[in-house]
Amino acid sequence: MEKETSRLGTVGGPRLMAVAILAVTLVGAGVLRFGGLTAAGPGAPAAVPAVNTQQQAELAALAPGDRPDGCIQPDRRIQLYAVELPRDNNQIRLGYGLTPETASYPGPLIEMIEGECLAITLHNDVPAATLEALRQDPNHPLGVSLHTHGVKYTPASDGTIHTDSWVPPGGQRTYIWFAKPRGAGSQGTAGYWWYHDHMVGGPHGTRGQGTGLFGGLVVRRQGDIRPNRTYVTAFGDLQSINLKRGAATDTCDPANPVPGPTCLIAKPGERVEFLVIGMGNDMHTFHLHGHSWSDSRTGMLDGTNKALADAVPVIDNKALGPGDSFGVTVVAGDSVGAGNWMLHCHMQFHSDQGMATMLHVLQPDGTLAPHSADHAPAAASDATAAHAGHEGAHQ
Amino acid sequence: MEKETSRLGTVGGPRLMAVAILAVTLVGAGVLRFGGLTAAGPGAPAAVPAVNTQQQAELAALAPGDRPDGCIQPDRRIQLYAVELPRDNNQIRLGYGLTPETASYPGPLIEMIEGECLAITLHNDVPAATLEALRQDPNHPLGVSLHTHGVKYTPASDGTIHTDSWVPPGGQRTYIWFAKPRGAGSQGTAGYWWYHDHMVGGPHGTRGQGTGLFGGLVVRRQGDIRPNRTYVTAFGDLQSINLKRGAATDTCDPANPVPGPTCLIAKPGERVEFLVIGMGNDMHTFHLHGHSWSDSRTGMLDGTNKALADAVPVIDNKALGPGDSFGVTVVAGDSVGAGNWMLHCHMQFHSDQGMATMLHVLQPDGTLAPHSADHAPAAASDATAAHAGHEGAHQ
Amino acid sequence: MEKETSRLGTVGGPRLMAVAILAVTLVGAGVLRFGGLTAAGPGAPAAVPAVNTQQQAELAALAPGDRPDGCIQPDRRIQLYAVELPRDNNQIRLGYGLTPETASYPGPLIEMIEGECLAITLHNDVPAATLEALRQDPNHPLGVSLHTHGVKYTPASDGTIHTDSWVPPGGQRTYIWFAKPRGAGSQGTAGYWWYHDHMVGGPHGTRGQGTGLFGGLVVRRQGDIRPNRTYVTAFGDLQSINLKRGAATDTCDPANPVPGPTCLIAKPGERVEFLVIGMGNDMHTFHLHGHSWSDSRTGMLDGTNKALADAVPVIDNKALGPGDSFGVTVVAGDSVGAGNWMLHCHMQFHSDQGMATMLHVLQPDGTLAPHSADHAPAAASDATAAHAGHEGAHQ
Repeated sequence: MEKETSRLGTVGGPRLMAVAILAVTLVGAGVLRFGGLTAAGPGAPAAVPAVNTQQQAELAALAPGDRPDGCIQPDRRIQLYAVELPRDNNQIRLGYGLTPETASYPGPLIEMIEGECLAITLHNDVPAATLEALRQDPNHPLGVSLHTHGVKYTPASDGTIHTDSWVPPGGQRTYIWFAKPRGAGSQGTAGYWWYHDHMVGGPHGTRGQGTGLFGGLVVRRQGDIRPNRTYVTAFGDLQSINLKRGAATDTCDPANPVPGPTCLIAKPGERVEFLVIGMGNDMHTFHLHGHSWSDSRTGMLDGTNKALADAVPVIDNKALGPGDSFGVTVVAGDSVGAGNWMLHCHMQFHSDQGMATMLHVLQPDGTLAPHSADHAPAAASDATAAHAGHEGAHQ
Repeated sequence: MEKETSRLGTVGGPRLMAVAILAVTLVGAGVLRFGGLTAAGPGAPAAVPAVNTQQQAELAALAPGDRPDGCIQPDRRIQLYAVELPRDNNQIRLGYGLTPETASYPGPLIEMIEGECLAITLHNDVPAATLEALRQDPNHPLGVSLHTHGVKYTPASDGTIHTDSWVPPGGQRTYIWFAKPRGAGSQGTAGYWWYHDHMVGGPHGTRGQGTGLFGGLVVRRQGDIRPNRTYVTAFGDLQSINLKRGAATDTCDPANPVPGPTCLIAKPGERVEFLVIGMGNDMHTFHLHGHSWSDSRTGMLDGTNKALADAVPVIDNKALGPGDSFGVTVVAGDSVGAGNWMLHCHMQFHSDQGMATMLHVLQPDGTLAPHSADHAPAAASDATAAHAGHEGAHQ
Repeated sequence: MEKETSRLGTVGGPRLMAVAILAVTLVGAGVLRFGGLTAAGPGAPAAVPAVNTQQQAELAALAPGDRPDGCIQPDRRIQLYAVELPRDNNQIRLGYGLTPETASYPGPLIEMIEGECLAITLHNDVPAATLEALRQDPNHPLGVSLHTHGVKYTPASDGTIHTDSWVPPGGQRTYIWFAKPRGAGSQGTAGYWWYHDHMVGGPHGTRGQGTGLFGGLVVRRQGDIRPNRTYVTAFGDLQSINLKRGAATDTCDPANPVPGPTCLIAKPGERVEFLVIGMGNDMHTFHLHGHSWSDSRTGMLDGTNKALADAVPVIDNKALGPGDSFGVTVVAGDSVGAGNWMLHCHMQFHSDQGMATMLHVLQPDGTLAPHSADHAPAAASDATAAHAGHEGAHQ
């Protein structure tokens, strides 16, 4: 059987969920540290967001038709805030956060396990004037939304204008996501997905995504091995990775690197998972030096099924278009050790313009291996890249 | 074994073939109705095109070298007409049809079963003056052709200029396609393919495809479950789906929707199959809201092979380039019920310009679920999109 | 088990390696003839490049950290020369060769077997003035490098500027590649890869690749069937295949065709392997008439695992972006016989501009089947296409 021994064991109860929320929070705040995800066990302290009784009532009032079949009652709920971040060079930047203060792009990584039902209450804290500035069509209403890929949701949780499932400024709305398990007639929902706005600017949320309203969603199957680290790398317009490019993609302090969206680090031997997302208007390719992966659901097969292992390609470069998302799992430094491994788009004019960062496989003392020259051709300010639009597609 | 119980049973004889022709005819004419494909059984009435004795003689006269090895005698034959459709805003539009009167784009869906050999007689009813207007090079001869993907054919059925396998105005030519079965050393031909002109305009048929000479071909394997409905969605230049965009992609009457290329509907629980095709000059991505599929041959695994089901990704967005084609199978409304589910290219400037339609999962009374706003930003006339060319690739 | 009987038998010793080097040499020199790869057995004469004792000393002096874990001692070593080829229409052209005299683009095909460790000494024979003319940034140092995909290498063999693993004019450097086998926790490295410069022009080697510094690398798994022929087809900028387009892609003499990068021929029934590579700035699609393949690691499954064979798509068109590489294996003329089968990018404006060649499946007398018209719209000089850059991405 092409499966791997579970480190999750028989998890799934409320205590694990609390831990999962903790992990998500840490990732979202950019302070996930060594062992954060794996060290946290059922006994670890958990920072569960308080459940607002008004919100509980709202949830209970949802019509049965607003819940996907199989989801009787949400197993957990989280709050998500869409906020405006400080402008950079006068460019508008938005972000999702588990709290208004921790909003960022990418937004918090959300993890689910097949079978789980999640309620997410989205609060639109973005000023109406900001949404108006981003509007592509004066008749389009002002609002933000939450649209997700991969999991099951009814039209009421679609996050689109035609289903009236968006949130006006100052409002809130609860979305229900169901990670339907594999079963008779169902392919399951385990996968590497993303969520994003589908409302800012126009009916496809082009301006919402381009200014930062996106994040990663991983749905695991019971038995999947948990990675030691997960990084979201969204490849988008203006040759950006997570709307950054050039020197802005890699801000690691060589002596004291702190993992986060702009500091990709791992200890040798750690299992590192990338959630690769395509956004915007262009095709890109995800390429990582010194590492390769299986072009399969999780990016890693255990090899017990030889026929499968012989048939599935092992790759180190994968093309992706907007809307695509996939998982890449590697063992950091496997066979090659510590080093600064380029991670870049292999479209040459994209990498030449700064669509490149590094996976730093650390030395034993936890510092970056030295390197002699910058991989990044030039610093590009965050804001320059954050304002993605069609006009920049082939600049 | 990762297979599914056959509803085809031991089919394959002449009576089923006649039924298949009926189904194709109905799809081509855009009047496929509920249960049309599945309700028709071996006993159903069949409208088999009359076999012209002159054509029979022509077929019998084919040299053995004109038939793929394994195809002694065609199991059935169909007539295909390439015609000019009425112009729209002065734009030239062409189409293939099982009769001249029913020509359309996409052309008729052709279904085969591995092992079958098919003879198709193409009649070129397109006026020479029209072909001349589309010609890119004054030295290129005037003609149309039929080139197909996936199945086996000799050079005489290649549909290209260098093989002399094209049809001048007023002429006809018989092409032989063999759906070679999987066997020793052969990978089989079951798949989701397309056929198209390879002659109009220049040696690659760019203008023929861009004006409408294309259609879908599905080759099934013995044992494959038949879908309840099949829709062809060809993603092409000028942000078009089947050379339409904006309001023209979705013409469903909400109270009485009739399925067809511009009205994608299904009852909850029906097995819906999309044949997704890439045409023209650009990359696109096929994305469907609320549904996902297995990235496998048919788009659905039955899960009996757990290792395979664990390894194959489940996706809801897939990039495709010109020439690519793949199958997507979903259970309409699985777990999420009736609703109006967006189907669009996730390249943001493509969807913003109208490369979007909907899969309408119907209410119990057969009508569309209500929705509050149009998903399509603006109506684009059919003709505007039909004239695809390089100049429009990144407009 | 989805595997195929090995023709390699128990190979892996030094004598086979010598033969492999011979085969590589012949491919690189463009003189691979019928049966060249398969007829050569352990007893065949081998032209092993002499091992320079100075180079041996250099190799022995490599620090342990410069060798991937698992590679104690290289199993073989080859010399690789980066040279400037004669200009064509004043365009700079570079190439890799096993000798300076046989340098070409694509460079020599390198074959490895999982478990093998290879030492490649790169000699930079490109004049400094030429490198200066290609430089995108006056601060970027002058040098060439060897970066590879798929196999394992330490930072010292990365071929990048930040790892100081490049070669100044007149210098040499030894790179160590390890084809790590599949095993506990490792996905293996068997696959269809490519190697290329990562230094000429700027930190991503854009100008090096665009002028010819690239080649194919195939890593086989023990038990893989060897093909009768292997062709490298790199799809790149300016609508080029191996930096050629139009008439320059196909230079076969009809009466006496000699296989090589611009003359793709095979006898009916031969197992032909394509190593398809994406380079430059654009997406392309690889399409072959009359043949199809399994979208799996080698492009061919033996079908003994029915579930797998039912699930893996069979395709005849595949999109690829820069950095991507994959293998396609077909049986030449299977079921369709001798003929001139188009091999082209299906992006219409690419094929229209000459991104097309042919696989010629030969007649019994070894000549090309006749055909009535050229597939190539116009001759494009080699040099016109060789100078690839961003500006030409969408011309």
